[in-house]
Amino acid sequence: MAERAKIAVAPASRPAMFEALCESVRAAGAEVVPVEEASALIWADPKAADAFPGVVAAAPDLEWVQLPYAGIENFADQLDPALLWTCGKGVYAEPVAEHVIALTLAGFRSIHTASRATSWPAQEGKNLLGANMLIIGAGGIAESLLRLLEPWNVETTVVRRSPEPLAHATRTVTSDRLFEVLSSADVVVLAAAVTPETTGMVDADFLAAMSNDAWLVNVGRGALVVHDDLVAALRDRVIAGAALDVTTPEPLPDGHPLWDEPNCIITPHVANTPEMGLPLIADRVRQNVGRWLRGDALVGMVDVRAGY
Amino acid sequence: MAERAKIAVAPASRPAMFEALCESVRAAGAEVVPVEEASALIWADPKAADAFPGVVAAAPDLEWVQLPYAGIENFADQLDPALLWTCGKGVYAEPVAEHVIALTLAGFRSIHTASRATSWPAQEGKNLLGANMLIIGAGGIAESLLRLLEPWNVETTVVRRSPEPLAHATRTVTSDRLFEVLSSADVVVLAAAVTPETTGMVDADFLAAMSNDAWLVNVGRGALVVHDDLVAALRDRVIAGAALDVTTPEPLPDGHPLWDEPNCIITPHVANTPEMGLPLIADRVRQNVGRWLRGDALVGMVDVRAGY
Repeated sequence: MAERAKIAVAPASRPAMFEALCESVRAAGAEVVPVEEASALIWADPKAADAFPGVVAAAPDLEWVQLPYAGIENFADQLDPALLWTCGKGVYAEPVAEHVIALTLAGFRSIHTASRATSWPAQEGKNLLGANMLIIGAGGIAESLLRLLEPWNVETTVVRRSPEPLAHATRTVTSDRLFEVLSSADVVVLAAAVTPETTGMVDADFLAAMSNDAWLVNVGRGALVVHDDLVAALRDRVIAGAALDVTTPEPLPDGHPLWDEPNCIITPHVANTPEMGLPLIADRVRQNVGRWLRGDALVGMVDVRAGY
Repeated sequence: MAERAKIAVAPASRPAMFEALCESVRAAGAEVVPVEEASALIWADPKAADAFPGVVAAAPDLEWVQLPYAGIENFADQLDPALLWTCGKGVYAEPVAEHVIALTLAGFRSIHTASRATSWPAQEGKNLLGANMLIIGAGGIAESLLRLLEPWNVETTVVRRSPEPLAHATRTVTSDRLFEVLSSADVVVLAAAVTPETTGMVDADFLAAMSNDAWLVNVGRGALVVHDDLVAALRDRVIAGAALDVTTPEPLPDGHPLWDEPNCIITPHVANTPEMGLPLIADRVRQNVGRWLRGDALVGMVDVRAGY
């Protein structure tokens, strides 16, 4: 068994992230060592999941793995229940919540239409102030959204698996009651993790249950949405518009029909950019390494059985 | 002298507004009468300033005039100091403040660029969270902005004529110190009235003093900005971008060079649309007529000498 203070950071494929996380480990009072000697592994490249099994196999004394992002589906089949797993859960929530508000306001205020205009456009728009927002998922994004919108007089409904009310939401309902609350929303925000239950949850039935005037905003994962059904709903004006920071696949390929939908706003997975996120995850790693050294509970624990 | 309870609403050129304001007068307990018999006039068409002098001339007993918008420059040469003048000051502030946030986020988050894309765009963006916002003008828009952004950890500097600090601003400075605070702003918001001092204040010198990374957001009036200087500043990347809800002239004509600037977002004077604003001004008129009947101070008084 390795000493707790011996911690590996890998891979080095993203130098800025690698350097920042090595610095976090040292700032917390631990030593950066090769994986062969490490009690813990800080994974430093969200995209390099292919390299992950080989690195873990080379680390006989591993007890804890810290993954960098909040969404860990690339690592889902690696979650050995004999280890402790943490991820970036909650770390990126504030910039992502800001992006939800940016996308909602862009849709409500027709900024996407105005951005394409070369002539004074039609005068239109509606307010987020006083509107009705449905948030699917009760994690850090929902919490941050409720915090940022606190003075906006927005009526917020949070849909989650457990019946526990989320603080500051107007109401919290369980997932089985989704269709009771869907039709009254002016905007539906997807901020849930991808699980077998949530994959493809936004399908033709879901979209048909939304108001014709409502916008869909996805900052969760593309896999939450059946994209063919969304294209049809936009084309047939079943909903007012969709603002997607995540798609399936990513990048969305050239020629995909969503590019042609006038009321579809597609941002390239930038709710939290590397520049916004690196100081935030570096701070989380520093915190968690400190907790690890003191034997305290880690922040951002992955529920291995639930897969998020 | 007419009884206070006799109030005229004119003109009838915008039927929805005319009807709503007549209803407000009656709801407050007064009677809608022809101008010839009226103690007060509720002006019901912001655009019909040409008809205004004739209506006023026909009203010998007039003591109070309520104008519909916050900006009253169309009526500026009509402000007889023998009368009381009120306007829509503060009424439209909340939707306008929302639009400031919508435009700032669209610029910071490159939603204007994403809206034009037909291919996965470059990943870029910065946060309004924690940014530095300079607000020129300390009226209702500034107050509403500070209220809505209260949980956003934005550093706010308000520039105004008087030295009185605006509540909830990080700092308030007088207009003569504008150039000391301009360069540190990530976004400069124009929310001032048009007066001889503010007309054309955003010129080449002003723009050169802004940060290269900063956005200009104008929800005040087009006349605050020298548009040729703004075109040059955008073309030469002196500033990061401009988001304009107001322009000179309005509508901005086809072929104007601002339409071609990739980092210029132009919305067609919709910070407060008629649909958003009508219930708000109707409520203000109902309040003010009630105050008029009781002899209380009116809300939204125009400073006849200052012209706003």
